[in-house]
Amino acid sequence: MYCKIKDILDGKFDGKEVEIKGWVQNKRSSGGIQFLIIRDGTGFIQSTVHRDKVDKKTFEDAEKITQESSVDIIAIVKKDKRAPNGYELQIKKLKIFQISDEFPIGKKEHGPDFLLSHRHLWLRSPRQVAILRIRDTIIKSGLKYLDDNGFYMVTAPLLTPTCCEDSTTLFETPYFGKKAYLSQSAQLYIEAAIASLAKVFSFGPAFRAEKSKTVRHLTECWMIEPEVAFLDFEGNIKLQEELVTAMIKAVLEKNKKDLDILKRDIKPLKTVEPPFVRISYSEVIDILQKNKFDIKWGEDLGAPHEKFISKQFEKPIIIHRYPVEVKAFYMQPDPENPKVVLCNDMIAPEGYGEIIGGSERIWDVKLLKQRIKKIGISEKAYEWYLDLRKYGSVPHSGFGLGIERVVWWVCKLPHIREAITFPRTLNRLYP
Amino acid sequence: MYCKIKDILDGKFDGKEVEIKGWVQNKRSSGGIQFLIIRDGTGFIQSTVHRDKVDKKTFEDAEKITQESSVDIIAIVKKDKRAPNGYELQIKKLKIFQISDEFPIGKKEHGPDFLLSHRHLWLRSPRQVAILRIRDTIIKSGLKYLDDNGFYMVTAPLLTPTCCEDSTTLFETPYFGKKAYLSQSAQLYIEAAIASLAKVFSFGPAFRAEKSKTVRHLTECWMIEPEVAFLDFEGNIKLQEELVTAMIKAVLEKNKKDLDILKRDIKPLKTVEPPFVRISYSEVIDILQKNKFDIKWGEDLGAPHEKFISKQFEKPIIIHRYPVEVKAFYMQPDPENPKVVLCNDMIAPEGYGEIIGGSERIWDVKLLKQRIKKIGISEKAYEWYLDLRKYGSVPHSGFGLGIERVVWWVCKLPHIREAITFPRTLNRLYP
Repeated sequence: MYCKIKDILDGKFDGKEVEIKGWVQNKRSSGGIQFLIIRDGTGFIQSTVHRDKVDKKTFEDAEKITQESSVDIIAIVKKDKRAPNGYELQIKKLKIFQISDEFPIGKKEHGPDFLLSHRHLWLRSPRQVAILRIRDTIIKSGLKYLDDNGFYMVTAPLLTPTCCEDSTTLFETPYFGKKAYLSQSAQLYIEAAIASLAKVFSFGPAFRAEKSKTVRHLTECWMIEPEVAFLDFEGNIKLQEELVTAMIKAVLEKNKKDLDILKRDIKPLKTVEPPFVRISYSEVIDILQKNKFDIKWGEDLGAPHEKFISKQFEKPIIIHRYPVEVKAFYMQPDPENPKVVLCNDMIAPEGYGEIIGGSERIWDVKLLKQRIKKIGISEKAYEWYLDLRKYGSVPHSGFGLGIERVVWWVCKLPHIREAITFPRTLNRLYP
Repeated sequence: MYCKIKDILDGKFDGKEVEIKGWVQNKRSSGGIQFLIIRDGTGFIQSTVHRDKVDKKTFEDAEKITQESSVDIIAIVKKDKRAPNGYELQIKKLKIFQISDEFPIGKKEHGPDFLLSHRHLWLRSPRQVAILRIRDTIIKSGLKYLDDNGFYMVTAPLLTPTCCEDSTTLFETPYFGKKAYLSQSAQLYIEAAIASLAKVFSFGPAFRAEKSKTVRHLTECWMIEPEVAFLDFEGNIKLQEELVTAMIKAVLEKNKKDLDILKRDIKPLKTVEPPFVRISYSEVIDILQKNKFDIKWGEDLGAPHEKFISKQFEKPIIIHRYPVEVKAFYMQPDPENPKVVLCNDMIAPEGYGEIIGGSERIWDVKLLKQRIKKIGISEKAYEWYLDLRKYGSVPHSGFGLGIERVVWWVCKLPHIREAITFPRTLNRLYP
């Protein structure tokens, strides 16, 4: 019976004959036995070919097999305490799809450049497979949480006539005699959709042509961006806490084996539930100054600052109410202190950094015009965005969650480039 | 109690006092009564303000209200057979968030250019809201079907060093001293991921810089692209049938009201279940020739051909086994007739056209190299793709489903531009 390794490891086929199609992850031989670790996309299992239990051709084929060769096997499932996963396959028949050339990865240590140039093959290593699976859970559980809570998925354009935030970090492309820019955020566009559907989110890529070469920047990343009519600052933070909690709970439930492969200590992840740590920007500045950081009130927080704060806590940290000047033009000033805006970043703990940025949005057209004028961007380019404040404007809030940032933290990766299938960075566009 | 119009219409609040936040879709007055149609993102409901049942200020506020003004109301829910949805709200208190400027849409007929230039406002019309909701269902039900059937979501890069299919229709952008091209398909990349996870799919945008100005082309569209190890041509078609059926069933279940608003005859949609109509490319050519189309065997099918075939059937049509020359280089030749490849398009019925293109992929490295050489593209650029055939190559198949194409058909839209939140076409980049 054709089946999946996951189901064998779940005990569904003990003693039965099964058929598996997959790849030979590893091979060793001992006396008259060939040991093959077989991978089929759902898991790994040890398989044996005994010289005296198969016909000659089958054993010879098994001898020919190289790492990463693709095979179709018929085997008996045996419970076996000595096997790495508790089960073993005794192969009866073996069909080879293709004998793999010598696999370039895994015999020795490789540098990151070599691995990234072979990303299409590196993806098969147990560690990368585990990350891919966790990424899958993080995205799907996020989308599920939003669907369960009445959010509609809407789509923001990626080709846009203007920039959203920072005009110096835009990719541009000729567009039939005009210029188009690759979107850095869906936010402004999905703000339009709240008047249709009230609770919306977008899931899609964002592009930043940043020259920075850090462990936490990709030029192409994926975001979930919810936007909600009539939601205030406080409600927005609660939504963020619940969304992130739903993601972490799903990973702890579905990806235990994957977290094991990554040797991820799950204790800190288990503490993730609302309320998260709350701390104002001003308090953060105090803490940083007390710890000899050279930073003044009014300056933006950088990676070293976030990292320091991040290390003080096990739970994610909500840093709220940043100075107007360091944040985007559309953020609502705090009525109790107009020097700061009703925004927050969410900082992942354990030395990681920002995974979310969100805010209440300005919904008064006059104030929004003032802000646009003050920062010196073109009012004409934002005419349609100002329209949203002229025709039935409502208080509203939203945020953007960076998928790779969450994967980076949850998998405790040294570098964000492992958090996406094919990373794009300053020096990396291939494969 | 703060609630949603959907729940009121479901009968959960009959006779109760509720609070609703939303927009005034329409207003008329008659004697001492103001009739407001209120929209809150979950539905529409008629509301009344009686001069003799509210205080003077509330009635005066109601008089001031314009179309699309945003409000917060407290009202009593009344079952009323005369009301458009069976329920009516009797407003007791009224808070105005913002009195809308005169709404530019809806007083008279508008041309498509005007509507597209006001897409951020046009999205609020009942017809556009219905389409957005149906689009949401189509995407989510597709993702759910794949998740339920063991597919992992993986992410293909959008910035790529080479083109996938047609080099004349690529958007390009400077990339730190190199050139990057916007991806036209995730396929080649996710083929790499099947060796990690066996059953994968990507959900994301695709870009085509096509100069064509037709009712079925967008320069930016969204696709679901499944790719499966060990899946053959026949299994691939079954997967397509099941995925599309899951989408249609979900829309029929969740979007009855929206289909009503669009005046969509749902009879043809109800017939959508496997098996779909199957017809070979060669048979299609015969039918077209018998119907006076000037087309020879070996030529690709165009929109008029697809449309003609499409009109002959109520169910979607699988057209299979196209000539090698008109299809992509990676498609597996039919062993029984090497002039054709094991591919298929799926054509939506009722005069619509292609919604899916799929195939078995060539998994023999020699054959793939021959094909690359024959069509004259650079082997060097596809080196990583060829690697997938050197290291554990397996038979595999997949396809790409165009989200907007499905929305276009399911909603029976005259033009595909209504099938996406902010359409991008040859002449349209704003808002």
